[in-house]
Amino acid sequence: MKAKIGINGYGTIGKRVADAISAQDDMEVIGVTKARPNNESRLAVEKGYPLYAAIPESLGSFKQAGIPIEGTLEDLIGKCDLIVDCAPGKAGAMNKEKHYIPKNKKAIFQGGEKAGIAETSFNAISNYSDSIGKQFVRVVSCNTTGLSRTLHAVEQESQINKVRAVMIRRGADPKESKKGPINAIVPNPPEVPSHHGPDLQTVLPHIDITTVAVLVPTTLMHFHSIMAELKEEVSKEAIIKRFESSPRIRLISAKDGITSTAEVMEFAKDLGRQRSDMPEICIWKESVNVKDKELFYMQAIHQESDVVPENIDAIRAMLELETDPMASIRKTDEALGLKKWW
Amino acid sequence: MKAKIGINGYGTIGKRVADAISAQDDMEVIGVTKARPNNESRLAVEKGYPLYAAIPESLGSFKQAGIPIEGTLEDLIGKCDLIVDCAPGKAGAMNKEKHYIPKNKKAIFQGGEKAGIAETSFNAISNYSDSIGKQFVRVVSCNTTGLSRTLHAVEQESQINKVRAVMIRRGADPKESKKGPINAIVPNPPEVPSHHGPDLQTVLPHIDITTVAVLVPTTLMHFHSIMAELKEEVSKEAIIKRFESSPRIRLISAKDGITSTAEVMEFAKDLGRQRSDMPEICIWKESVNVKDKELFYMQAIHQESDVVPENIDAIRAMLELETDPMASIRKTDEALGLKKWW
Repeated sequence: MKAKIGINGYGTIGKRVADAISAQDDMEVIGVTKARPNNESRLAVEKGYPLYAAIPESLGSFKQAGIPIEGTLEDLIGKCDLIVDCAPGKAGAMNKEKHYIPKNKKAIFQGGEKAGIAETSFNAISNYSDSIGKQFVRVVSCNTTGLSRTLHAVEQESQINKVRAVMIRRGADPKESKKGPINAIVPNPPEVPSHHGPDLQTVLPHIDITTVAVLVPTTLMHFHSIMAELKEEVSKEAIIKRFESSPRIRLISAKDGITSTAEVMEFAKDLGRQRSDMPEICIWKESVNVKDKELFYMQAIHQESDVVPENIDAIRAMLELETDPMASIRKTDEALGLKKWW
Repeated sequence: MKAKIGINGYGTIGKRVADAISAQDDMEVIGVTKARPNNESRLAVEKGYPLYAAIPESLGSFKQAGIPIEGTLEDLIGKCDLIVDCAPGKAGAMNKEKHYIPKNKKAIFQGGEKAGIAETSFNAISNYSDSIGKQFVRVVSCNTTGLSRTLHAVEQESQINKVRAVMIRRGADPKESKKGPINAIVPNPPEVPSHHGPDLQTVLPHIDITTVAVLVPTTLMHFHSIMAELKEEVSKEAIIKRFESSPRIRLISAKDGITSTAEVMEFAKDLGRQRSDMPEICIWKESVNVKDKELFYMQAIHQESDVVPENIDAIRAMLELETDPMASIRKTDEALGLKKWW
């Protein structure tokens, strides 16, 4: 029997997680919620996902709009084994208090929530086992997922003394027509360090990291310039080989024609992925360099999709569908057609 | 008597250097060149700069276009004490061989040229004295000027063990309608390190620096995230005070409303500078931080104007109009209305 999963918030992340769940053989989507009737609500119904009103007060508006509605979030929680909270902003914290605790329901939160919302923060390759059987788990943000995947790979070659990372973040998602900047570089925050370092430490607590973050006028991907002081003498070839064999990391090359984040996303289209997503962290092969035991590399992060396979693994860990991390990661990646690393 | 200066290439940098020279009392523009008759050629004439054809073959085309022309580059070289080469791309190297060496003329080159073109690379605050009386001097690029000004200031507080800098570069100048990227982050170069580190070492040879560079879709300013390991224990307050009192560095603050490069350039407009330029390097005050003897800060560089006062000082050094670096810097800054640091 498949695990019954509800999605609270069928938006940028929620709709992707729903489709990723549908691609697995050990779990299924039994319903998704939307706060208001709109295009995405209709799409959910069209795709066959039972639709629930995230707010009881909006039940009537769905009926008025002619969108079939099965009930409210409360009803969905009553039917599912686990809820994936993909609500916007910091709404997850409220949902936890108001719905998930009273109903004693397992729930996954996204990286936009504070770490304290959950018992553990989650990145499959870094700390899958910590979330086995847990009630509340938070999948770390897209940027933190990118840092943890590749730094975890680096750690297989050498201990890391210190990391410095400059995060050049996309200003808005492709669909966000009202956000900026349109022609500016925004130190965000203007203080150093940014919160990304402490966030990485929720999954890799032993890594000494300082991060700096800016926003730039692009919608496609985040970009990280990473500098890691290593304890051991490691060659760049060894690091490249490690990245090549690690899950959810893809080596790309400017020499090969992928000279920017735009070409990365064009490549994702050519790969035929759903929504042209690129859930793998993409590292420029020629950027990998080691100088005086310091490793440098540059990576691009598809902010809308890299956390999607992580949500699938988090479900498996929490519901104890699989206790072997690598078995879950491989199962997820095979189902989603990600890079073959096994 | 004023020193007679010619400008070879009345473009983005050349037109600014011409106006900056005109604002000084010890030098004057006796002519500027353009390769072709166009809007900027007319502007030069309108502003009263005698116009010369950069290429003899185009003399006729200026006459045809009805633009008064005084002669060719050769004629201008014959009349001036020093030529400021602001030719595009790597044309300076050719001009040097073809014109300046045969005529035994002093010439300043811009940062787009290779360091080997000149006897010394120049940044006023870092190494003015090295260029006194020299025939060929290269003013370093806008990015290198930004790095050298602020790192030189840092060095007044402590020796620097190592610098890492991530250079987030504007994709194109505001007037360049054909250049990109329009929606991408471009590692440029995709290799690490970039050439900016070695370029800094042409003016501050003792600094151990590694740089990484990317292009982003903005036109306004370059942006640097700088991380400098210091030898001494220095407080962030001491560093801020040092920046405040250093020439051609301006502290700005997000709390004060300057949250991005867009607001920096709006501020430049409000200051009433010619062309709304911001020749000072702008450092976000709240970004200045010291952690385990490592200094962090973020700075913005107005790529079209920060080298302009440097060109003025280079002229003074080469023609021995002034042998005291600080006296020249102050004279330039007073004439241009830059930040009062004296």
